[in-house]
Amino acid sequence: MAGLRVCSVLVTGANRGIGLGLVRQFLGMPSPPAWVFAACRDPKGQRVGVGTDLPFVGSAEVTDPASIKAAAARVGEHLGGSGLNLLINNAGITKLNSLDNETLENMTRIYTTNTVGPLLLGQAFLPLLKKAAQGSPGSALSCSKAAIINMSSYGGSIASPSGWDLMQIVSYRCSKAALNMLTKCQSLGYREHGILCAALHPGWVQTDMGGSIGQTPAVTVDASVRGMLNVLSSLAEKDTGTFLDWQGKVVPW
Amino acid sequence: MAGLRVCSVLVTGANRGIGLGLVRQFLGMPSPPAWVFAACRDPKGQRVGVGTDLPFVGSAEVTDPASIKAAAARVGEHLGGSGLNLLINNAGITKLNSLDNETLENMTRIYTTNTVGPLLLGQAFLPLLKKAAQGSPGSALSCSKAAIINMSSYGGSIASPSGWDLMQIVSYRCSKAALNMLTKCQSLGYREHGILCAALHPGWVQTDMGGSIGQTPAVTVDASVRGMLNVLSSLAEKDTGTFLDWQGKVVPW
Repeated sequence: MAGLRVCSVLVTGANRGIGLGLVRQFLGMPSPPAWVFAACRDPKGQRVGVGTDLPFVGSAEVTDPASIKAAAARVGEHLGGSGLNLLINNAGITKLNSLDNETLENMTRIYTTNTVGPLLLGQAFLPLLKKAAQGSPGSALSCSKAAIINMSSYGGSIASPSGWDLMQIVSYRCSKAALNMLTKCQSLGYREHGILCAALHPGWVQTDMGGSIGQTPAVTVDASVRGMLNVLSSLAEKDTGTFLDWQGKVVPW
Repeated sequence: MAGLRVCSVLVTGANRGIGLGLVRQFLGMPSPPAWVFAACRDPKGQRVGVGTDLPFVGSAEVTDPASIKAAAARVGEHLGGSGLNLLINNAGITKLNSLDNETLENMTRIYTTNTVGPLLLGQAFLPLLKKAAQGSPGSALSCSKAAIINMSSYGGSIASPSGWDLMQIVSYRCSKAALNMLTKCQSLGYREHGILCAALHPGWVQTDMGGSIGQTPAVTVDASVRGMLNVLSSLAEKDTGTFLDWQGKVVPW
């Protein structure tokens, strides 16, 4: 992780699971970021679990454009004249529907949170990400300079849709395939601004979501997050627009 | 096209462009299907252009579950005891937004038509598709037996998102990547019922949609449809869950 030196990072869905793990490991770094913004739907809610040890907890409903814009404005105020180095779109939901009982409502709800949310967050935080890129020495893309990381899933790999026999979750798979496409679009659109964009598969992790199918996932939150931060530290120009797992392996689209 | 012998086919978005071209070529075959169901949002609308020469024109709003179920019931009545061999999910929309001005409303609207619609149509017509598969001799998958064909696009290829410099259309690209994932899910879920599922890229075709960027597309509707029908006639077991263009070439996910 020696290579990952960010002054500021924002993590969505930071109240539990992988999001909380990311925030904790950022704060536990030998040289932690000056700003760790932990955003979640309801920071006062029961499941939050983060608070006093955080520089800032922002409330942001990722399906509400006004809430996202307000969060970006608050983050901008905290940063003063500085930019935001790293936006981690981690917030995501699923529902264990099958192909047969999937509904319009569920398809729309999961797409809105898992795919549209990261689009809107990218738009709202673009000025701060651009500022970070402009203020960073050198021209090569990196997560230390400016980056958007979208939390995707192996379940969203069209070429190899992992775990079909365990769970069909069509709405989730479609939303993550679309998120991968969004990541590619962001990488094409934001490259000129000096912003790296990549999609990550965190592994099958011991979280509420990962454990929702009734079996014990293979990877601890701690190991997944450690792996992903290591991957982030190594991302370079060639990696923008790619889909990698928590150990740095390329995941097929 | 010698190999494509379907008794019944339903095409959505059949009032113009590729959908209308498909209906016309089905009707013009030496041995046309006994039933060609041409579904569109408003068959009485100004742009319809199909009518008296069709066995049946069904009104179906692909974003409305009740409308889809009603259409499936009407088709079932027309078919009597027979099944439906071929469902072509052709209805689709786009909007020339950029990454910067894409909105929640537009993302949701285009996803609902382009991705959720084909899911709901697959669910509603599943009993008729299963019936066709059961009534067809032999066990190998084919379009002549029972198939769902989803009209995708090269623009939805994450590996190679065609035409970025001409049009960013993030909402469309995300919806088509998600449609490709849906196609894969349908292929996994419906294989046991004897139903082949594939995604097609029709080419850059001279339609209202194809011409909306102000340049003349390369492919005529007639050539695109002829090519796609030829591809359909050749699809076999190994092709279920794949993404092919109108000339039969594999498109990367």
